[in-house]
This record gives sequence, C-alpha cells and structure tokens, in this order.
Amino acid sequence: MNITGESLIGASCIKGGGADFFAFDPAAGKDLEPAFHTAGKAEIDCACELARIAFDPYRATAPETRARFLESIAHNIIGLGDQLIERAMQESGLPRARLEGERGRTVGQLKLFAEVLREGSWQDARIDPAMPERQPLPRVDLRLRMIALGPVAVFGASNFPLAFSVAGGDTAAALAAGCPVVVKAHPAHPGTSELVGRAVQQAVAAAGLPEGVFSLLTGTGNQLGAELVRHAAIQAVGFTGSRQGGLALMAVAAARPQPIPVYAEMSSINPVFLLPQALAEKAEALAAGFVDSLLLGVGQFCTNPGLALALAGPDLERFTATAAEQLAQRHAGTMLSAGIQRAYEQGVGRLASNPHARQLSHGIAGDAGKAGGGVPALFAASAEDFLADPQLSEEVFGPASLLIACKDVAQMREVAEHLEGQLTATLQMNDGDHATARELLPVLERKVGRILANGFPTGVEVSYSMVHGGPFPATSDSRSTSVGTAAIQRFLRPVSYQNLPQALLPAAVQDGNPLAIWQRINGQLKK
Amino acid sequence: MNITGESLIGASCIKGGGADFFAFDPAAGKDLEPAFHTAGKAEIDCACELARIAFDPYRATAPETRARFLESIAHNIIGLGDQLIERAMQESGLPRARLEGERGRTVGQLKLFAEVLREGSWQDARIDPAMPERQPLPRVDLRLRMIALGPVAVFGASNFPLAFSVAGGDTAAALAAGCPVVVKAHPAHPGTSELVGRAVQQAVAAAGLPEGVFSLLTGTGNQLGAELVRHAAIQAVGFTGSRQGGLALMAVAAARPQPIPVYAEMSSINPVFLLPQALAEKAEALAAGFVDSLLLGVGQFCTNPGLALALAGPDLERFTATAAEQLAQRHAGTMLSAGIQRAYEQGVGRLASNPHARQLSHGIAGDAGKAGGGVPALFAASAEDFLADPQLSEEVFGPASLLIACKDVAQMREVAEHLEGQLTATLQMNDGDHATARELLPVLERKVGRILANGFPTGVEVSYSMVHGGPFPATSDSRSTSVGTAAIQRFLRPVSYQNLPQALLPAAVQDGNPLAIWQRINGQLKK
Repeated sequence: MNITGESLIGASCIKGGGADFFAFDPAAGKDLEPAFHTAGKAEIDCACELARIAFDPYRATAPETRARFLESIAHNIIGLGDQLIERAMQESGLPRARLEGERGRTVGQLKLFAEVLREGSWQDARIDPAMPERQPLPRVDLRLRMIALGPVAVFGASNFPLAFSVAGGDTAAALAAGCPVVVKAHPAHPGTSELVGRAVQQAVAAAGLPEGVFSLLTGTGNQLGAELVRHAAIQAVGFTGSRQGGLALMAVAAARPQPIPVYAEMSSINPVFLLPQALAEKAEALAAGFVDSLLLGVGQFCTNPGLALALAGPDLERFTATAAEQLAQRHAGTMLSAGIQRAYEQGVGRLASNPHARQLSHGIAGDAGKAGGGVPALFAASAEDFLADPQLSEEVFGPASLLIACKDVAQMREVAEHLEGQLTATLQMNDGDHATARELLPVLERKVGRILANGFPTGVEVSYSMVHGGPFPATSDSRSTSVGTAAIQRFLRPVSYQNLPQALLPAAVQDGNPLAIWQRINGQLKK
Repeated sequence: MNITGESLIGASCIKGGGADFFAFDPAAGKDLEPAFHTAGKAEIDCACELARIAFDPYRATAPETRARFLESIAHNIIGLGDQLIERAMQESGLPRARLEGERGRTVGQLKLFAEVLREGSWQDARIDPAMPERQPLPRVDLRLRMIALGPVAVFGASNFPLAFSVAGGDTAAALAAGCPVVVKAHPAHPGTSELVGRAVQQAVAAAGLPEGVFSLLTGTGNQLGAELVRHAAIQAVGFTGSRQGGLALMAVAAARPQPIPVYAEMSSINPVFLLPQALAEKAEALAAGFVDSLLLGVGQFCTNPGLALALAGPDLERFTATAAEQLAQRHAGTMLSAGIQRAYEQGVGRLASNPHARQLSHGIAGDAGKAGGGVPALFAASAEDFLADPQLSEEVFGPASLLIACKDVAQMREVAEHLEGQLTATLQMNDGDHATARELLPVLERKVGRILANGFPTGVEVSYSMVHGGPFPATSDSRSTSVGTAAIQRFLRPVSYQNLPQALLPAAVQDGNPLAIWQRINGQLKK
C-alpha cells in the first residue's frame, strides 16, 4: 500500500493545506519519505461534519453490525502485513517483536470489543414496567439504555504507534459504542498511522457504513489538535500523552460553548513498594525484576516504575547494590523521538543536579558516532527529602527511577499519601507482609487505578477487569479506563423512555428482549 | 427540635462566623426566626477535613451497614413529624400536600438506595482468573470493583427543599457509594435544611460512623459555595440550580490544582411536541393537560414544559384557544423566593417585549395588597422566528410557556435540532403519528435525557430506569443522572487488583463471592 502523506477524510484522501513534514527514523537519525501534509481548518471541518452526519445512522446500526465492522478492521490490519511492522519500526525505533506483539494486542482489543457488543451488558438495559394501580399515583412505564455520546476525537500516542493510536483502545471503544471517530495521527509515526487509517477506511466502505464514521487527520503542531477539540461536532476526546498536552486539551474542552469530556492519560511514576519481608527474602531477585521492568521499551511505558520505596536497612542496601550493578551493565536504547530523548535527558539532568537525590548508577551510553539513545539511570533519596521536594515526584519519561528509603512503615504510608494520582501501585510482598499491605491498601486505592502484587506495572492486560486510569494527574477523569472492556462506558450516556409504544422502543429495552441481552427488570437482572 | 441557625460540622453544632441572615416566608412576606449564621472558612475547613478523615473508614463499611444507615436517616426524617412540613411550607410557600409528597419521595429514595446497596451490581465486580499456561505470555489474575470517589459537596436546590436538598438524591447516592457529604444548605430554606441535617447527624451517631460522614454548612452569598468546591478534600460536586450558578461552580472546579467532576443540573425548557394526529384527535384535552403541567408548583420544576411545538393550522388554533382560555382563569401562585419571582417577571417581560413573540394570555394577578406571586403567561411565535432569535430559547423559570407553529414536520425537526440540551422531550402522539415520531426520535435522543410519550414532563419517578439529566446546558455532564438508582455511579470509580492474595482482596471480588452479588467472570455475569 502506498503512503501518500494525505489525511483520510471519510472516504476521501486529501492533501492537507498546512505545513509539510517528514517522519523521522530515530535509529538511523534521518527523515523518512514521503512528505506529510498537515491538515488545515477545511480538512478538520470536513472530517467533523462528516462525523456529525454519520452519527445517527451509525449509532442506529445493530451491535452485530458494529461487531463485524471491528473484526473487519482487525482483519485489514493483519492484511497490511510486514509493511506495517517495518514502517512502525522505522518511525518508532521499537524492535520487531515488540511491534508484532503490539499489533496482536491492537487486533485483540478490536475483537474483544466485538465480544462486548454481542454480550450486550454495555447497553445497561433497564425496564420498570408501569403500575397503573399504584397508590397514591400510578407508576409510568420507564426504560433506560445507554446511547453513544457523539463523534469522538482521538489523539494517537507517541509510545504505542498501534495499540494507543489510530485503531487503538479509544478508537475501538468509541466505534463499539456507536461513536464516529476523528483521529489526529501522532506526528512521530504518520506513515504507520496512514497505513492503519487506510485499513479502517476500507472496513468502513466494505461494511457500507456512512463514510464519516472514521477520518484521520495528519499534521504537525498544536493548532490542529486544538481546533479539532474546539469543533462543535466533537463530543468527547481521548488522549494519551504528556501532562502539558493533556492539560491544554482539557482547557480547550472546558472553554467551549458546550464543554465536553476529555479522557487524557497523562503522567504517572508508578510506585513500587518493596515490603520488608519480601525484601528480606529476595532483595536481589526483586532488583533484577525491577531493572528489567524499568528498562522495558527503553522505559517508555505509561506504567514504567519510576519510584521504588523500602525501609532503610541492609535489605534495601542489597536491593540497591544489585539494581545499581545490573543497570550499569545495560546499554542506552533508541528512544521514540528526538523530543522524547531531549525531555528524558533534561529530567535525568534535573535529578543529577538535585541536592536531595544521589545518583546510584547509570547505563552504558551509545557509540559517540550514533544518535545516542536513552541512558538508564538510577537515583536514591530519603523519604524526608522526597516529601519536602516536589521535583522528586515529577515523572521522568524513560529508563530512570528513584529509590526512596523510609524509616518505618508509617513513613512509607506518609509517602504514599503524599503522592499524586497514579496509574498503578505495586506491592512486592510475601505472606509476612499482609499487615503492612493492609495499612497501605486504603491509601493506594485512593491514589491509583490498579494495584498489583508481586509483579511489575509494565504489561497491561486487555481484559474485562483492567483499569488503565487513575486519579488526576495520571488521568483527567478517574471514573474511566482507557484499556479493557470498561472503556466503552466513557463514550456512552443514559437515556430513558417513558410510556413509549413498543414499536418505537429501541430493541435493547423492548418486551420480549429481541437482542437476548441482560435486562434489569424492576431492579433485577434477567435474560 | 430547636432550630438554632448553626452549621452542623460532624457531630458538633457551630455558629458560623459570617453574616447573619433570616429565612423568608414568601406567602406572608416576612422574615422568619431565628437568625442563621453563615459558615466561614474555619467551618468549611473543619467540615471538609472531617470528611477526609471519615472517607477511608466510611467507604470500608459493609454495604449492609450503609443500607441500614440510609434507612435510619429516612426514619429520622419521618420522626421530625409535622415540624418539618410546617417549616418547609413557611420557607418555600409550597402547599402541605406537595411537601408531604416530597417527604415521601425523599424517604423513598433513601430506601431505594439501601436496596441498591444490598443488590450489589453497583460494585461492577469483575474477575478474570489467571491463565498461567497462556501463550505467548501467561495471564495475570485481574479483578475490578467500583470504589467511592471521595468526599462530595452537595448544594441544596431552592425548588425542592427536601428531595433535592440536604438528604436528597445526591446525598443519598453519595452516601450509598461510600462518600462523605458536605451539604451547603440553600439559603431559601435554612430551617428545613437544619432540621433534616440534624436527622442525618443523629443517624451518623446512632450508626457509630465517623462524624465526618456528614456536615451541613448554612449561609448566604456565593463565597461559601466556591470555597467549599475549592477545598482539596472535596472530590465531586452535586448541584441543582441556575445555569449561572452551575457554570460558576464548573469554573471553580476546573481551576483547582486537581480538577474534579461537577454534576450540575441547570436549565431546561422541556419541549412538548404535539404530533399532528394526536392534535387533531384531542387538541382541547391536550391543552388542558398542558396548562395543568405548566402551572404545577407555580411552574417551578426543572421539567416544566416551557415550549410546545405543533404544525400550524386549525388543530393548533384549537389547542391555542383552549390553553389561552384555561390559563386566563388561573391565579398567580406564591413563588419560592423573591429572587425567583423577580427573575420570572424579568423573563416574562423579555418575552412580552420581544417583537417575535405574541402574548396569548396571562393568568389572574394576586391581590394588590399581597406579595403578588408568579402570574401564568402564554406566548406564541413562529418556528422561523424561534430559529432566528436565541432569546426565545432561554429558560423562564416559572409558569410561562411558548407555543411554536411549524410549517411542516421537517421544520419541527429543524427546531428540535436547533435546541440546546434538555432534561426531557415529550411526544403527544397516537398510532397515526408513529412515522413522525420516528423522524424526531434520533434527534431527541441526542438532545435530552428522557423521552416521554403521552404524558407531561413534570413528575419524575424515582426508580431504576429514570434519567434526570441530559446534554449541556441541561446538565454539566450528560453521562449521569441525578434521580434514580443509576445516580450512584456518579460517585464511583473503578479500581483493579492484579494478583492480590485472596486475604487482601475486597469482598466484592473474592473467590466464593461472600457478598452473594453478581460477578462478571471472564466477561460472563454469574451469581
């Protein structure tokens, strides 16, 4: 398939009127052909108007129709074959195995949402039959179902060119819910985005759906995204990226004449609590696992463990020594983009010059002649200093982490309480640590979206029970997840129907339950 | 029970340091004893800090404990006896029967949330068991449940001194969810608020719950509410009131270092579509029903029908003539407060002087010597003018409505499309109107939270299937309802647990299902 640098506006491919730009190969340190043409106001308006027009007919399609459509997108992505993987490798510097895995995950999440559509609980169908004899007043017939929120703007993420991008989690959830999607491609992987976008565009056409169900805007600069969020047709926003970027979109959305929800996943340092008994039992093994998790994907995961906490003492010293030693043997890795590497180096620089942080170790820098890459780095600080110095809580996106020595469990709890909202918290523990865990759990529940025991936070399962979210600033909206089946709920809202004739009721809440889904009748689930 | 004018801060009763004010009897036109003392910063801080302290132990209580607590609040409200009804009548000008009905509803909604707590689906318990043999990677054990969002600020509404006030829908939903509540009493009914607040305070003590589970701040002026929403401990806001008030709180919440969700129910004109066949069949009966709904409670319902639409022609003329005639025979009614009456008179004045609106009729003004009251008023305009003049779409809170003559169904649909978000839309229809209804329904679903057939929008059932909500500006968040059992979801967020030992898992997601609730296991509901 040809990469043309165009935006995909409904069924059309349009060369945007804005600035031209090129994808960049961070490993080779050079631009990639062809030129991409930034979408301008005309393209944004056209994509959003088409989405508006598509909304009613698309949301009226049967869940089975949308399920097949999602499966057809998955099929088309696989059909792109190795071209997709190779382009993604070039644009991201990520290795083949990682991208093949990410493609599997992307396809898997599309198929999982097809399952969700067929199962039907997402409609939250409810029926309270009329009670004409009720005293003092008769009860009306009331029914409720969830409907799609409206056209959704999705922002591709730099660090997951497939799974959090054009046909990633937000797009899959929104399309499942019945929302047309306008994607803004991330400029770090525009070719990958275009390929996947064409796969979706073809699935729209093959399913005979209105063309406005999907558009892909390509471009560079912040203007494009802000104008997209400002467009009156857009009714919700999905974003994964920096805190600064997320806050900017939240401000744009709140300033609209009609404010809209923004689901921004922003920053997280994912604390790992090394509880005393587990640390005593296996400090060295934990250190090895920790370094592996920290360096996975050159540390470029939202769930990267940027903080570890333990009680001061010989067990922590063993952990620290092993972690420092292992990290010192690891090489710098190519980062996703020059901008991300620059930000990482600045973050490491801030820690290195912070009087409260002590550098324990760093990895092996790249060849002098090459593009460099992110050099792993490990720092330590006391809990007192961590509590006093806000800079130590800042996310450094990349393979850097900070080890915090606490004087007792109470102080560990104090540090937990001090943390901002996070995507995850991890407890390394054994059976002897349950009492300590019980002290921490209520605090962690308030602070994070996912609590793990005896694993590491990298690795986000796509399933029914996943929460990839958490209190601000991990995300802009803790009531929601961006991964897993519960993500469909972010693009739905309830509508109730009072005394509507059966012939006019949506299938989900008709008597006789034609969709054969769970219905809540007078408060009781029935099928 | 003595009304003292104090704020109820946890278990204490504290005389606020701010300005003194009095409740006002709008029927008698005079102040009511005693003086109320506006809560100041110290009282706000104290209430919010107590709520913060209460949060973890309160949310950790068993659902059964909270269910009994809600039932005990209901019992205590009934126990206030006639004193509550009489004080509410004095402060609101509402008649006894209405307030007794509202008390029944308030008590009923507390009991309904007790039922919801016991049934347990609100926890959205999910279990994805580990798959250690899965290829290429083993699957972890993942479980999900909903937890409480945090302390909630609830703003009492002027127009429902009981059902949308101190122990109203938002308070019941938040307490059910496990959130402590800090209520700001509406200054139009501070005595009613204090009585109900004491009933709640006693229930907290009797249940042995942490005192910070409930506080009631009394006061006048906007400062109190803004400071409450700004307090770092507050994690969500429930508000029913004016668009201006709701927008102000949304701005305060968005400007916090940690933005929080605001559930503001603001303005709605609740269009009634008189479809052609129904209008031909029973124009006069519809007019009578319409006038009754419009004048109910002196038009002071969020769901008051402020707009009716029909096709121009003899049937609409019959409807108009009957409605105008019936309305002309109806008397002015005492409004809730001097401020509301002033705003109503200004709104009617704007319509009366609008060149595009024609006054059809008005009701009978009160005695010259008395406080006046809201005089019913009926206006008409063409659809063309309605589409062109934004002033005609503005809510006039009170017994005034506007009849819009459309030239055909397409224009009726155009008017529907032109409307802002609404709480409700009503279709008056018979079997011959189904095709017309089918044209309107997709538009109305996008515009409103509840669609009714052959009733009137006043009358909001408290049940499982009610949605009292809708797109902006009807509310600030269309994803939620303020009435009915689904309201509990506004105060919850998901947390997932990965590989946690059984002993540390919350009961809702333990193997063996000790709460005997619905659990979604590998995507399938089981009990």
